[in-house]
Amino acid sequence: MSLDRMIENIVKMQNPTVAGLDPKLAYIPNYILAESEEKYGKTLLAAANALFEFNKGLIDELCDIVPAVKPQAAYYEMYGWEGVRVLEATIAYAKSKGMFVITDGKRNDIGATMEAYSTAHLGETEVFGEMVPAFGSDSLTVNGYLGSDGIKPLTKVCAEKDKGIFVLVKTSNKSSGELQDMVLDNGNTVYAQMGEMCEKWGEEIPGKYGYSGVGAVVGATYPAMLGELREKMPHTFFLVPGYGAQGGAADDVAPGFDKNGLGAIVNSSRGIMCAWQKEGCDEKDFAKAARREAIRMRDEIIARIGEIKL
Amino acid sequence: MSLDRMIENIVKMQNPTVAGLDPKLAYIPNYILAESEEKYGKTLLAAANALFEFNKGLIDELCDIVPAVKPQAAYYEMYGWEGVRVLEATIAYAKSKGMFVITDGKRNDIGATMEAYSTAHLGETEVFGEMVPAFGSDSLTVNGYLGSDGIKPLTKVCAEKDKGIFVLVKTSNKSSGELQDMVLDNGNTVYAQMGEMCEKWGEEIPGKYGYSGVGAVVGATYPAMLGELREKMPHTFFLVPGYGAQGGAADDVAPGFDKNGLGAIVNSSRGIMCAWQKEGCDEKDFAKAARREAIRMRDEIIARIGEIKL
Repeated sequence: MSLDRMIENIVKMQNPTVAGLDPKLAYIPNYILAESEEKYGKTLLAAANALFEFNKGLIDELCDIVPAVKPQAAYYEMYGWEGVRVLEATIAYAKSKGMFVITDGKRNDIGATMEAYSTAHLGETEVFGEMVPAFGSDSLTVNGYLGSDGIKPLTKVCAEKDKGIFVLVKTSNKSSGELQDMVLDNGNTVYAQMGEMCEKWGEEIPGKYGYSGVGAVVGATYPAMLGELREKMPHTFFLVPGYGAQGGAADDVAPGFDKNGLGAIVNSSRGIMCAWQKEGCDEKDFAKAARREAIRMRDEIIARIGEIKL
Repeated sequence: MSLDRMIENIVKMQNPTVAGLDPKLAYIPNYILAESEEKYGKTLLAAANALFEFNKGLIDELCDIVPAVKPQAAYYEMYGWEGVRVLEATIAYAKSKGMFVITDGKRNDIGATMEAYSTAHLGETEVFGEMVPAFGSDSLTVNGYLGSDGIKPLTKVCAEKDKGIFVLVKTSNKSSGELQDMVLDNGNTVYAQMGEMCEKWGEEIPGKYGYSGVGAVVGATYPAMLGELREKMPHTFFLVPGYGAQGGAADDVAPGFDKNGLGAIVNSSRGIMCAWQKEGCDEKDFAKAARREAIRMRDEIIARIGEIKL
């Protein structure tokens, strides 16, 4: 009914990070691409197959040290339905290895349509009287611009199925302030207002460890706002993008954590996926290079925030 | 580079409406469901196949009188990758019949990830040196909460490939005001601010008929705001949900049109898809019932706004 399973993974592994799985063909070793192309030709199926082989290699090497993965839906949709099939397969594979899965889809809609997204990504679909999971993820990122009508269908499924969501509050990109930093006539910034709404939505699905099933996305690239929101949103767990490739460092993510080292999970996508290219190691060593980078990142953040305690 | 093709369809057919394709199994005639279940069992494939048969029937009966269709991604994702395959097939089928396709995905993200969504839904994906369309739609609904970083990758593809987008401005749901109606310290409401941003983004992709490639979603359920935004956003075409099932009528959508009867396209989803159930006609007549409702809706709106002129 919340993000408790993720929190337990984080504490067990003493690692508050999530590996983003945003696979582009350019990140994938040539031997995987060549095998796929030989099997399936220059097709979307071949591309999708290469993504899955790459993801499985990463998950195998990361699953005992990294608590969660975050596949970004866009990179799968780019390869059409065959890419989306790999999104589904990646979620299932990561779950089978014990990882908590955050589908980064930033979905948003209202009423019956939001129910359909909830069913698609977190729940089960009724098919001729039988209940079948579609994507079956553990959590989903969502956009709250449409207000409660877009969130209630999700919290309902979260309560029933032990799932969670992360609502965009303050995003890591340069232009995030164009709307999010504007000041409302009640004195709140738009992002702080969205934060208040998250706290309220979370009341319906509290968790065992003080954090509800409604998390928030808050970028590492705005450390002062991360700290401000950590104070204002004591029951909301943060998913923190922007570490590494986007410029954030351990000092920048630190304000997102509470005094027990909980309260935030920091994402790295390219840093981990492309570690083999940055290292310049043998391409067959890509997953081991990802593991080395995941350990480096974990150690860097833990050195800054200390032991994580429940 | 804009929404001109859609506008030309609207004028040719004298019909400023779009048929929403949000197919739930409950809307689909029993004979289609039974055939699918017999072929494929109680599976997601059977469900997806039924959706496609239903959609094809609707498109065949609507394509000569309705200028556009709007498949809502959530209802396809609900059936997993097999549902998403039907989204792709539905887009291709509607385009083959000359309809303008608006994929209602409300996608949003930043930088490279937004590029991936643009490529997925509007552009072409590079696969082993060849360019292949993934979903290949004509336009996409998007959420602008992340600012320009989330929109520029789309306008770039729109310019190159003659496509358009619709940004959420004032949505049709009850709780849309929780954030969108709040007043900023510059005196704008959040929705009016988003509207200003749309006008600005649209400057990069102007159209032949005064409307840019950046449209806006503005609900029929708030007619006064629809009229306010029509004045404030003279270059932005509106996609108007909320007619029919959500309560909006011809009088409510009228403020969205300009003096030439242009400027808005009104969506009906359940009204058209479920017309056979409302009429109580033979279920094999479902597509003809949809056509009758589409004609009724067209005539009702045209009676209110008059002839549509370029």
